[in-house]
Amino acid sequence: MKIGICGYGVIGSGVKKLIDEKHQNNEDLEVIKVFDKPFKKDELKELYVNDYKKITENKDIDIVVEAMGGDKFPYEIIKDALKNKKHVVTSNKEVVSLHLDEFNSLAKENKVYFMFEASVGGGIPIINSLIQNRKVNEINHIYGILNGTTNFILTKIEEGLSFDDALKEAQRLGFAEADPTADLEGLDMVRKISILSDIAYNTFIDVNKVEHRGIKGITKEFIEKANKNGLVLKFICESKIKDNYVSLIVEPVLFKKDNIISNTKNEFNCVIFEGKSNDKLAFVGKGAGSLPTASAILSDIYLIKDNNANYLDLSKKVVYCEKNDNDYLELCDDGTFKKAKKENFYARVFME
Amino acid sequence: MKIGICGYGVIGSGVKKLIDEKHQNNEDLEVIKVFDKPFKKDELKELYVNDYKKITENKDIDIVVEAMGGDKFPYEIIKDALKNKKHVVTSNKEVVSLHLDEFNSLAKENKVYFMFEASVGGGIPIINSLIQNRKVNEINHIYGILNGTTNFILTKIEEGLSFDDALKEAQRLGFAEADPTADLEGLDMVRKISILSDIAYNTFIDVNKVEHRGIKGITKEFIEKANKNGLVLKFICESKIKDNYVSLIVEPVLFKKDNIISNTKNEFNCVIFEGKSNDKLAFVGKGAGSLPTASAILSDIYLIKDNNANYLDLSKKVVYCEKNDNDYLELCDDGTFKKAKKENFYARVFME
Repeated sequence: MKIGICGYGVIGSGVKKLIDEKHQNNEDLEVIKVFDKPFKKDELKELYVNDYKKITENKDIDIVVEAMGGDKFPYEIIKDALKNKKHVVTSNKEVVSLHLDEFNSLAKENKVYFMFEASVGGGIPIINSLIQNRKVNEINHIYGILNGTTNFILTKIEEGLSFDDALKEAQRLGFAEADPTADLEGLDMVRKISILSDIAYNTFIDVNKVEHRGIKGITKEFIEKANKNGLVLKFICESKIKDNYVSLIVEPVLFKKDNIISNTKNEFNCVIFEGKSNDKLAFVGKGAGSLPTASAILSDIYLIKDNNANYLDLSKKVVYCEKNDNDYLELCDDGTFKKAKKENFYARVFME
Repeated sequence: MKIGICGYGVIGSGVKKLIDEKHQNNEDLEVIKVFDKPFKKDELKELYVNDYKKITENKDIDIVVEAMGGDKFPYEIIKDALKNKKHVVTSNKEVVSLHLDEFNSLAKENKVYFMFEASVGGGIPIINSLIQNRKVNEINHIYGILNGTTNFILTKIEEGLSFDDALKEAQRLGFAEADPTADLEGLDMVRKISILSDIAYNTFIDVNKVEHRGIKGITKEFIEKANKNGLVLKFICESKIKDNYVSLIVEPVLFKKDNIISNTKNEFNCVIFEGKSNDKLAFVGKGAGSLPTASAILSDIYLIKDNNANYLDLSKKVVYCEKNDNDYLELCDDGTFKKAKKENFYARVFME
């Protein structure tokens, strides 16, 4: 199969490297065109194209990999590729969370597949596991740590750094972006939990409705106090369905020390789902990074190549509960809780 | 698709219940014959057959579910079903670990599929995740807790019970069999780690070669001493490959308290695999039970129905290292270790 890549950054170049290796091992996979900004031309030589239509309208190309990030431009590229009967594989959670229903319908119409394993949890095979599990299980609860940057920061604060130093360390190691707002305020996890909920509940969540409360006000003292009382602060996303009522939230939550979430450290992610047939199923792994994300894209390419891909049913109408009814608590020095004053930093307590 | 079930115990009857529900929802799945001992005849009425050949040679049946357990009889049934061009789905780790290569070849020859997700880790989707991950990753290390019975016993000892009382409690709750030898001596995990290694390393492991050392000599005092020193005793299986050299072992191992393995409690299983593209990927969930295991079988049925199944490549020749070169240590009262005397209970220390 012939592949065109849009976006030759950390992920796009990782995908090309993996496919080149497979191609050298005589597997029927080959990157034949790459679209990016003109300054990549020298590096890409004859593979370079300066217009994405040279990929989406290219008669020889079977699969378009979108690895650019952002919304507007990727949205046009993906739509154009699907309309031209190319399979699409993307790692872009923003565009997936905003348009999954449209992409899924367009793919079905054009008898090609739209795949997005790499958009949530990097190398953790959560998307395709959910799609398969959904056939035999009624999932009603999903929660976990789906942002490596903020989990890294919280772990470092626990180890003794201040918030600012922990953030700087994350930036130095490439885990946090120069502008870390989407991570710190929870928007990144809003997108990811929305995508997982779409699949699990057979519906399409409006990401703009999802409540999120960030970790910016957190202090080293709060985390120390929690630890002394056998608790660990984690920044998580959570989604529930009961009958047709769905609620989603992203916020800081306190867990008991021996919980699997509490023991998910540094840049690792952990996602747990519960349903009628499976009491509790947890997946833990690195949620980002060039190689894990690129290999998730390659995994999707193999699902297409081996004729193992599926369409989604996103047709269920649900009622979105905007109001979250959790009790928010502040942790007192003696380890007891009191009702939180909204001007202080507060967290929910997850007692499981 | 028409389904025949061989073995109507906890798992087989669970599968029938799930398929009946799907059938009532107008899905194209139906159980039309069930084979078991004569005393099930009254319960099964017109579905009952007294000879497995009435299932394996039945022209209307597309899929045979083998849920009997044991080796000899299931081996004959599975072979016969595959030769008669029926897909086979099983939860029987014994027969899978002993004959996977033969079943895989027979399936390929007859253009049907042999599926066994339910044989390892109950409802945890580890087998099909490994099969998919294997296409894009070079896996070199697999380890974890794959026996719920012994993990339950160790957890209860940690909570204060004696070994004998913990075993009785496991039997009372239905986690341990009347004869728990295969669990306690590690044979159950030998089978499971062999199956996972077959898939991950594209080879076929001789289960009879795998070293295993059980937990029978364990005392409450040993576990208490470990806990006081920040360690947790777990009964695990482990498999490694380097170049073409493979080693497998099942034995008690000490882990640090904040490890994901240490925090896998009661009847939960945890399996971790590491490879070239994925640093570390962990799956945690209930490893047994009627509903999780039956839903894993149903999941395989959907992979066949949706044309999403695959064949395995088990052709790689590896050198099996019988000698395990781990250092075994006894835990001293002061938290230091000394080289183990083989007459005492000893454990390896996993320092990660």
